[in-house]
Amino acid sequence: MAHGHQHGSPQQQGPFPLPGVSNIIAIGSGKGGVGKTTVAVNLAVALAKMGYKTGLLDADIYGPNVPLMMNTNQQPRVLTENLIEPLQNFGVKVISVGLLNPGDKPLVWRGPMLHSIIRQFLQQVVWGELDYLVVDLPPGTGDVVISLFQTVPLTGAVVVSTPSDVSLQDGRKAIEMFRTARVDVLGLVENMSHFVCPHCHQEIDIFSKGGVERTAREFAVPFLGTSPHAKSLYDFAKQVIMRVAEVKSSAPGGNILQVQ
Amino acid sequence: MAHGHQHGSPQQQGPFPLPGVSNIIAIGSGKGGVGKTTVAVNLAVALAKMGYKTGLLDADIYGPNVPLMMNTNQQPRVLTENLIEPLQNFGVKVISVGLLNPGDKPLVWRGPMLHSIIRQFLQQVVWGELDYLVVDLPPGTGDVVISLFQTVPLTGAVVVSTPSDVSLQDGRKAIEMFRTARVDVLGLVENMSHFVCPHCHQEIDIFSKGGVERTAREFAVPFLGTSPHAKSLYDFAKQVIMRVAEVKSSAPGGNILQVQ
Repeated sequence: MAHGHQHGSPQQQGPFPLPGVSNIIAIGSGKGGVGKTTVAVNLAVALAKMGYKTGLLDADIYGPNVPLMMNTNQQPRVLTENLIEPLQNFGVKVISVGLLNPGDKPLVWRGPMLHSIIRQFLQQVVWGELDYLVVDLPPGTGDVVISLFQTVPLTGAVVVSTPSDVSLQDGRKAIEMFRTARVDVLGLVENMSHFVCPHCHQEIDIFSKGGVERTAREFAVPFLGTSPHAKSLYDFAKQVIMRVAEVKSSAPGGNILQVQ
Repeated sequence: MAHGHQHGSPQQQGPFPLPGVSNIIAIGSGKGGVGKTTVAVNLAVALAKMGYKTGLLDADIYGPNVPLMMNTNQQPRVLTENLIEPLQNFGVKVISVGLLNPGDKPLVWRGPMLHSIIRQFLQQVVWGELDYLVVDLPPGTGDVVISLFQTVPLTGAVVVSTPSDVSLQDGRKAIEMFRTARVDVLGLVENMSHFVCPHCHQEIDIFSKGGVERTAREFAVPFLGTSPHAKSLYDFAKQVIMRVAEVKSSAPGGNILQVQ
């Protein structure tokens, strides 16, 4: 990075660890509408219920759906020095642009504004001590993810996909993006793999179940399971924790743009 | 716009009509994964089958799924003066970043690169004479849509949503965005409103059917129907054509950033 070594200058960029935050885990997908936010919310709540100090950062600026799913809808308090106090529900600290800009007015913003808000959400929110900060990424491989990579070192990423062709097509791009940025892919999650008819209770294979597991094998990354809801939720969270431990013990790590 | 009146200068921006292209229709959604590309592809193919000269521009740079759905996968030919020849299938001329960058490597690009490619897809692709150019937008309200608004005047936009809360939340933002840019909303389409069980053939109300129609009433925009597949496809295309005629006859029009 151009300014990576200008420590102390205003152009100083990072990535630098967030003080007090042990692990930052991104939930990505490539494609929208595959259940990324559902997985992020469920993972964060499961981690909190297991006793870990957990935060959830909604990085989807144009479609911030975390507040609706987390049932948080107050305006966050702004403290002195422009620090923002996150909301809290289900034991999880939450920040989202949907809290700061509620209602139907869209934020029609170009990339540099996205960069500013992501830095602000990381550095000016009073996260305090966290074992896990879960980041719900927007679809795509653009400004938000680049800014995230450049601002903080990530512990790893979970990639969510449905087994449909189009979802897998974009999911593979997400895996490649994390690899290029040297972010460990903790694993793949298959969402909407099947559906049980409420009338006849037979299983309906909406897309073609198993496609995500095959993709995981193809890319040699762990498969974390299908639709981590209901009873499998804690298993899912435990697998993520185990994978984080593996990743941290195995390699010196460091994302591609990390300055150490 | 800052440079709007510097005609002839290199900074000259637009929006300016595309020579030979009668109507440009954007298909947007706010949220990803709601069937936007499916609607865009079906509309384009229906228009072509009805005898209209039709093009389809895939503006989803990070998740270009149009080639998969249109079954187009060759590299487009680059002619002299950097002009690009679109591919053609089902009678529709097609361009997509997925044709220029096939495979799993993601384009990890910030906003200015998106701006360049959108302008290039509009101005350097040999569209020829078109009755309709259908633009499949990416999710969100960022660089791609801003660049589109600034480059060409749009005839109107179709907004796609599922009846789920989160999809409607983002769909309302998309309507507001088009309104702010003075782009006529031709209507709303409800996708995935219900599902018929292949085993017992009963109808399953996955989300809550009717939510998009209610939203259309709330915003006083036409409701174009549910899941425009199969036999309703031509009806859908006809409705869009009718709405385009209404919009063009009713007002002087012009998008917010248009220079005339």
